[in-house]
This record gives sequence, structure tokens and C-alpha cells, in this order.
Amino acid sequence: MTMKTLLLTQKEVAGFLTPARANETVERAFRAYGLGQTGMPPKSYLYFPQGDLRSMPAYIFGEGFNIAGVKCVNVHPQNGAAHLPTVMAVIILNDPQTGFPLALMDGTYVTALRTGAAGALAAKYLSREDAAVAGFVGCGAQARAQLSCLLEVRRIRKIKLWQFAGDRAGAQAFRQWAETTYQLETLVSPRLDRVTLESDIVVTTTPSRVPLVNRVSPGTHINAIGADAPGKQEINPEILKKAKVVVDDWAQASHSGEINVPVNRKQLAKRNVHAELGDIVVGRKKGRIAEREITLFDATGLAIQDISCASVVYNALKDKRGIKSIQLF
Amino acid sequence: MTMKTLLLTQKEVAGFLTPARANETVERAFRAYGLGQTGMPPKSYLYFPQGDLRSMPAYIFGEGFNIAGVKCVNVHPQNGAAHLPTVMAVIILNDPQTGFPLALMDGTYVTALRTGAAGALAAKYLSREDAAVAGFVGCGAQARAQLSCLLEVRRIRKIKLWQFAGDRAGAQAFRQWAETTYQLETLVSPRLDRVTLESDIVVTTTPSRVPLVNRVSPGTHINAIGADAPGKQEINPEILKKAKVVVDDWAQASHSGEINVPVNRKQLAKRNVHAELGDIVVGRKKGRIAEREITLFDATGLAIQDISCASVVYNALKDKRGIKSIQLF
Repeated sequence: MTMKTLLLTQKEVAGFLTPARANETVERAFRAYGLGQTGMPPKSYLYFPQGDLRSMPAYIFGEGFNIAGVKCVNVHPQNGAAHLPTVMAVIILNDPQTGFPLALMDGTYVTALRTGAAGALAAKYLSREDAAVAGFVGCGAQARAQLSCLLEVRRIRKIKLWQFAGDRAGAQAFRQWAETTYQLETLVSPRLDRVTLESDIVVTTTPSRVPLVNRVSPGTHINAIGADAPGKQEINPEILKKAKVVVDDWAQASHSGEINVPVNRKQLAKRNVHAELGDIVVGRKKGRIAEREITLFDATGLAIQDISCASVVYNALKDKRGIKSIQLF
Repeated sequence: MTMKTLLLTQKEVAGFLTPARANETVERAFRAYGLGQTGMPPKSYLYFPQGDLRSMPAYIFGEGFNIAGVKCVNVHPQNGAAHLPTVMAVIILNDPQTGFPLALMDGTYVTALRTGAAGALAAKYLSREDAAVAGFVGCGAQARAQLSCLLEVRRIRKIKLWQFAGDRAGAQAFRQWAETTYQLETLVSPRLDRVTLESDIVVTTTPSRVPLVNRVSPGTHINAIGADAPGKQEINPEILKKAKVVVDDWAQASHSGEINVPVNRKQLAKRNVHAELGDIVVGRKKGRIAEREITLFDATGLAIQDISCASVVYNALKDKRGIKSIQLF
């Protein structure tokens, strides 16, 4: 039998995968994960002199999903000089029943959106319902995805952007984009405390290896997105110790997430982590319970987020006219 | 910068990747492996009710290679009923310098040939130079790849095929193919000993979970290809104990190769394994040293075999007219 494998470009993926759709999909994926309806071996890494390549396989068999696949994603921090993105991803989507490769698709856009969607999901369960001000530490592409997805779950009216001395243009570009796209009130400040102390939700998306966020106000929710490798951290461990810390996955987070440095230095232990996000989504653990508690979500990025999003894109586009395909074998 | 990712079908891959080219490439890959010029984390598995999906990443940075990638390959034993191959594979090839996905290609043909090439490489270093008769236990697609590659390294004039009572057609089809393609003298027998005792090289490619090969003659080389998962075995452990056993990779072989069952039952230990194939290729360990010794190669299949073969195919076809490509992002 000859069967064709769909080929989906970023443009096609982005045409379907809106922030709202990513949010809904990623929530289902975390629910399936919380219910034990997923298979997800650890990410595996290839290390190069200039970067790395990660293979992220996942299988989801609940919450309406019956799909498997692998995302292969690189991180090459110096790619800007070659006019290439730092992060580029390809997703292979497979039918669990036969193993057939249903689709080969750009995974770069999925990576950005599914990360934003995990942040939004955490904010939905952990931030105050009346959260209206979001502060951003890090103003790159991922900050935009975080904002776009966050706006679907909280009525954000104002954003505060930290202007890092090494990259003034980044904050200004983010400001312009946010004002144009969402008509939000914006404030740009070089003073980090001004951003973090006066926001209901703080979103960190930097590649920092030292804590940047040292003070937040009672009731703040923090989405700690940037740390994704051993040695990286953005948040002062003192905040982690007093916050209700939720991780996407304990194994990944303690290895390479926001908590990895303090866990390694014995400043933080597993008992200091309140829950995995999936536990909260399925109701096994509670989210925010008090107005003034500080909550923090440590996102490392799970393959189930990628494969679930890829799956809804595939289902939406597979019978659409004009979509290319290839007979591989 | 817009860059395109090459799309390579099985037909295009097979048009370039001859047995001779696969042999030469896989030997270079094993040499790089022996010299420590590779990165290769363990295969990772997703398990489904009907099969599994394996992600196999590798990076090779010696012996003329500077390439990385991931093969994603399924094994679904019941696919025949759906008129689909049991094994289907896709390879993503990446530039280690930038992480850019250079090519997406069929990996099914590469899987067959690179496995045949590993068998041929083992035969080159371990079988008698005058080996002229090859016996096949298992007559499926992989047996053909083994024969095609083996013929490049030894002057085989006769093949003996074991006709398994459960699949008479398989041996007859293999016979017809071998006679037509290579004008070889062939013998088909339902008596297993007749095949294994009267061959210089015995090639096993079955999915057996019990030992099939119980007797071989002095001087025989065995390519034990079939066992690729815990619980699988084709060779009587008594033969393993007296043979010079060479594995492609100790970790993989002891986990899921021919030796996995006896190692698990403490019938065989690491000290009973003479070498990894790469050690012999680089000259760190000896291959065959005596006319009458029995040698055995336990092949589990390494990602470096796939990525090296994919790399030479990519290099050969990347500037060829008529090859398709896609701008993914």
C-alpha cells in the first residue's frame, strides 16, 4: 500500500496553531500526563562544539489523543551570526497503530507556542484570577509567545518590560509589538525590581546563569521559563524556598530546569516542590489557595506538549487542499 | 537567511547507496566510533500496544564525517496485515555547526543496508578469508541485505537456506532472488543442522526467542543479526561460550542483542566478549587469528551506521537536479 507523509511548513503550522488552540491542546496533554496516559522517555542530547541537538519522543493515548512522535530540536546560541535561528525544530509524527510517519513538520513554531501555552496553563491554575499586570524579564521571541498565550487566560491590561543594558532594542521591539498587536499599556524600565515587584505575573525567559529576580510581592505568580540546561537559573533561591513551586516534570526540572542549581547545591529538595503541573490539572493537587501566596512554575518543556500540538495541526490540515506530501518509501 | 531542507525518497536513497558504498561508509563509522569520534546516547523507545518506535541520535566527527542526526524507526510485527512494512524509518540529518536540518529522508532502505554492511564488516575481520559457503537462518528482507553486502567482502559461491516449516515461501523466494541476481548455487533444506554445519559463514536474521542454531563447525563465523530486543536469541549459549564473541556495542548488545538472554541468566559475562567491532577495525583488538576458531558477531544496530550512510547519500544528492527540497521555516 502506498501512503503519503504530510509535509507541513511553519507558515502552515502557524496558520492553524493559535494561542487559544495551543492552550487548549497543551492542557489536554498535561491532563493525559497526569492520568498516566502518556509515554515519554527522557530527552536525549547530542553535544557539539557550538550547540546541541535534542531528541524528544512522546506517545499520548488519552484525552482524545492517540498519537506518537519525536521532536528534534537544536540550540545553537551563536546562530545569529549565520542569520539562522538559535532554535530550529523538526517534528516527525507517527501513527501508534502502525508506526507509519504521518507527517514531517516544522517544529520551531510549535516549540514557541507550546512553551507559551504551558506558561498560560500554569497561570490559569496558579496566578490570581484578577492578575492584570505582567512583568517580563527577557524580551525575546519566547516572551512574545508567553504573552500571547497568557492573554487567553488572564485579563492582562499592562505589561512591564525589563530593559537589559546589553539589549535595549529587545525591550523596545517587544513594547512596539505588544502595543500594536494587543493595544496594551506598556512600561519599559532598566530597574529590575520595578518590573518584578509591581507585577501580578512575572515571566522570565532569559538564558541567565545567575539569579536575576530577587524580589517579588506577595501574591505574585512566576513563570520561570528560561532555565533549560544544567547551571542555568533566573530566580533567587530564597524566592523558590518560600514559593509554592510547581514543575512540569520533576526529573527534567531537577536536571535542567529553574530548580536544578539549588537542588544540586542542596538548597532545595524534592519536598520543597509542591506538584507537577499535571497533578494540578487533574485535580490530584491544589493550585493557588491563597491571595498572598507566591507561586512559581518551572517549565523545562515536555515532548507531550510538542506532539499534542503537532497532532492537532496534522488533524486540521491533513485533508486540506494545497498541503504537500511525499511518498517516502 | 532562507535555507532549504532536502527531501529524499527511498528510490533516491537506493539509487546511490549500493552495498559497496554502504560497506565502505559503515566501516568508516565504526572506525570513528573506535577512535572516540562519535556521540551516541542510547536508543530510546516508545512502546505501543502493537509495536514500538525508536529514536536513534548520533554525531560523527571523524574519518571524514562531520554530521549529526536522528533516525526514528518503528517495529510493528503485525503490519503485514495492513500491507505496510514491519519496519519504517525516517532520518533527520543535521549540520552540527548550526543544527540546521539538512535533509529529511527515508531511513527504511538505509536501515536494511547499514545492517547488511555491519555484517559484511564483521565478516571481513572475523570470517576465514576463503569462506565460500554462506548459510542463512531467516530468509526475509534482511537476509537479502546481508547477502548483498557479504558478497562484496568474501567470494561466496554457494548459499544454503533453512526452510522454516512455518514459511516455505520465504526460502523459495530468497533462492529465486539470489539465483537471478547473483547466479549463486543454492540449496534449500528444512534441516537446520545441514545449513549451519556445512557453511563457512552463518547468518541469522529471525525474530526467534529460543536458540535455533545449536551446532556449527570449527572455523565458522556467525553473524547473529536477528536479536534486537530483550528476550530474543537465535544461538545456543554453548556456542557463544566457546566462540570469539564480538559485539557492535556492549551496552546495547547486553541489553537487547544476541547475548542479552545468556548475560541476564549469568551464562555469559562481559569477560566472555572479546571486543566491540570498532576496537577491531581500529586495530586495538585482533579479529580472527586461527583457522578453526568460531567467531560470532552480535549486531544490534548503531545510530552511527544510519547517520553515516545518510550523510554520504546527502552529500551525493544535494546538488543533483530533480531532488526536492522544502523551506520548513
